[in-house]
Amino acid sequence: MLVKSQVKYIQNLGHKKFRDADGVFVAEGPKIVNELLESDILQLVQCFATESWLTAQERAVKGKEKLFFQIDEKELERISFNGSPNQVLAIFTKPVFDQNIKTKGLILLLDSIQDPGNLGTIIRTADWFGLKRVICSPETADVFNQKVVQSAMGSIIRVEVIYADLTEYIRLNPGIPVFASSLDGEDLHEKIRVTDALLLMGNESKGISPVLQSLAAKRIRIPGKGGAESLNVAVATGILLSYLEPVS
Amino acid sequence: MLVKSQVKYIQNLGHKKFRDADGVFVAEGPKIVNELLESDILQLVQCFATESWLTAQERAVKGKEKLFFQIDEKELERISFNGSPNQVLAIFTKPVFDQNIKTKGLILLLDSIQDPGNLGTIIRTADWFGLKRVICSPETADVFNQKVVQSAMGSIIRVEVIYADLTEYIRLNPGIPVFASSLDGEDLHEKIRVTDALLLMGNESKGISPVLQSLAAKRIRIPGKGGAESLNVAVATGILLSYLEPVS
Repeated sequence: MLVKSQVKYIQNLGHKKFRDADGVFVAEGPKIVNELLESDILQLVQCFATESWLTAQERAVKGKEKLFFQIDEKELERISFNGSPNQVLAIFTKPVFDQNIKTKGLILLLDSIQDPGNLGTIIRTADWFGLKRVICSPETADVFNQKVVQSAMGSIIRVEVIYADLTEYIRLNPGIPVFASSLDGEDLHEKIRVTDALLLMGNESKGISPVLQSLAAKRIRIPGKGGAESLNVAVATGILLSYLEPVS
Repeated sequence: MLVKSQVKYIQNLGHKKFRDADGVFVAEGPKIVNELLESDILQLVQCFATESWLTAQERAVKGKEKLFFQIDEKELERISFNGSPNQVLAIFTKPVFDQNIKTKGLILLLDSIQDPGNLGTIIRTADWFGLKRVICSPETADVFNQKVVQSAMGSIIRVEVIYADLTEYIRLNPGIPVFASSLDGEDLHEKIRVTDALLLMGNESKGISPVLQSLAAKRIRIPGKGGAESLNVAVATGILLSYLEPVS
């Protein structure tokens, strides 16, 4: 049984200020929740699940019964942020990353990505290519927004997302080449082998801000001969990451 | 002023059977609607817009005043399929493509893409790379679903989307190599130059069906060394299209 205060608390976690205040976030669905439960860089705060999920996950529940609440489908609908709730909703503390992780190699910089789905997909893509950190401008969507968490598909426990002034970040890393994605950049036909490098991607409609563009060593464009005005930013990020090959 | 029957009609167009019955679909927001209004392969049925949009688009309205209805923000909210409605919603007839368009070169086959946002992004990406046709299995989302239309960003007037049995389609095109995206395929490190070819992408969670996989000449994988289990299907499609280079 859900009590009213629990429903209210979970709904509040849809807002960044409440997530920040408690240092927590929400994840939903067995695929993501099961993966996060196994991680040792975050902790489970509370988990609300149907009987079938709880039965299947007996091992995960054991010894932590106080954190798990059995609810029915109707109750899950009341607390879910998804159109189609799926068995389980869990609240976790935000991940704490190992600060000794190698931060060199290829790093992704995001200038004001607004759409949570795009941000999540970009984090998942960065994870696929083995990136360890993504630096976001303060205007970028919050990585712990529930839509970001869902579309990142568990990658938020492997990719550390940091919010920082990108101009400052680039200035603090002199000598590291900045590749900026730009519709009027140079066509990228072949792979580029890089040691340390920054890949800069811009806002969905406005692109990269002029100040940041001016800091780029090279502006690159994905060659296309069709009619579309642009590519979706997550798709463009994936293509560019597949062409920038880190030499280790 | 909106009348009740108009509201009901537009809401019905959220369902495929009503769109199919009338051969129409809905588009929203100035960016997409303005582009579609200029196309000669579809016709405007009705357009509902705020005063500011109507004033700015005087030229498009001229001579077709009967098709345009001025409504206010509140009314737009009632008929919009978007969380944040934006100035205009229009109903168009489905596009009629020139059947003489060259259908060779690279063609994309989609096996059961479920998410409308993914399908729209894939169509936009196919358009970027100059593809003229996308063939979808019958289980794939409807291209005229409003979420597909929004994420395709106008590309539905340049890329013809056809629903067909993919096994049959491949069998009817013997000699044309099929490249299938597969997590256990061969790592794709370099571009592949192709004349005519089919690129086959699979469902978001299940991938390509075994029968279709068996028809592939080559199964390819995007090399990744990180922890993510897979890439988003629209991102993967973009990367593979950027590596399959049609020779004209």
